[in-house]
Amino acid sequence: MELLKERIKIDGESFDGGILNVDSFISHQLDPILMKNIAEEFVKRFEDLNVNKIITIETSGIAPSILLGLALELPVVFVKKIEPKNLDEFYSTQVYSFTKDKTYDIYVNKQYLSEGDNVIFIDDFLANGNAALGVRYLVKEAGANLLGMGFIIEKSFQEGRDRLLNHGIRVESLVRIDWISENSIEFVK
Amino acid sequence: MELLKERIKIDGESFDGGILNVDSFISHQLDPILMKNIAEEFVKRFEDLNVNKIITIETSGIAPSILLGLALELPVVFVKKIEPKNLDEFYSTQVYSFTKDKTYDIYVNKQYLSEGDNVIFIDDFLANGNAALGVRYLVKEAGANLLGMGFIIEKSFQEGRDRLLNHGIRVESLVRIDWISENSIEFVK
Repeated sequence: MELLKERIKIDGESFDGGILNVDSFISHQLDPILMKNIAEEFVKRFEDLNVNKIITIETSGIAPSILLGLALELPVVFVKKIEPKNLDEFYSTQVYSFTKDKTYDIYVNKQYLSEGDNVIFIDDFLANGNAALGVRYLVKEAGANLLGMGFIIEKSFQEGRDRLLNHGIRVESLVRIDWISENSIEFVK
Repeated sequence: MELLKERIKIDGESFDGGILNVDSFISHQLDPILMKNIAEEFVKRFEDLNVNKIITIETSGIAPSILLGLALELPVVFVKKIEPKNLDEFYSTQVYSFTKDKTYDIYVNKQYLSEGDNVIFIDDFLANGNAALGVRYLVKEAGANLLGMGFIIEKSFQEGRDRLLNHGIRVESLVRIDWISENSIEFVK
């Protein structure tokens, strides 16, 4: 997605250690028109699938997901990171975050993810794939079918993509980044 | 907003103690078409204002805000609840949550809220108004102008509305609820 590449080049901030800051248009301040373009690109990427629900994870996955949900007229479920009161009504699992070096729990209410649901998962970043694999676990627990995963930005120098592919998951990343260092971003050719 | 009232009557779950669960269409599973209608209603409510930025707070404010931002072609900034690394780059304040009986911090990067910005704040619920007043503090810290606040659902039996009005804030709530008890919801006439 060339538009997104250009925006990352102009407004993304890159640092040694593979760090990319897109707070000015994706992760803290949102550009709704770019987000609509992102949603339209996801529509194209997944147009061969018969999806009935979109699943995402709070927080940064919500904006692209609601616009995709609107385009496809499908409900969006966002997986929560805050422990709910009635735990027995939820599927849950643990996710390890490398960035924060800690484990957190994710939750989805059993009412909103069911056997026979055909879902795609949408998120802003694919890096090591831990959050995505956590959501895959919840989808399997529910007996639903995971038809694919879509990411706005993939850090292709991390292992997430391969880990998802090894689980047989279809991965659609709108932009794939080969390398990030101080003031330098190389995209996958 | 009659459409929203009807939806709350049909799909909202009400309990003693003023509790309203709208997880099936607003707070956990999202109905994008309803959200678009909500955004269009906010457009009408605030059409007399000259706004240049929408501010919201994670998580449930993001979906209506991105759709409002898209309709108005304005950037959306969501206030964060997770402590950022470079604290000195952020405005922050504390918010007391009655629901959880604990205090949490909220943060907004100084880059995305500036002197001269004319903002409206959007959130899903207005109850005691603590989160809204926290955001008001951040907006004032930044030297920006808070032109109004829009809420999807107002619990009019709690003090939030009056507290905001006492601070001179314009409040637009799409649905106002007078009373909630077990299986019963009374709307403000």
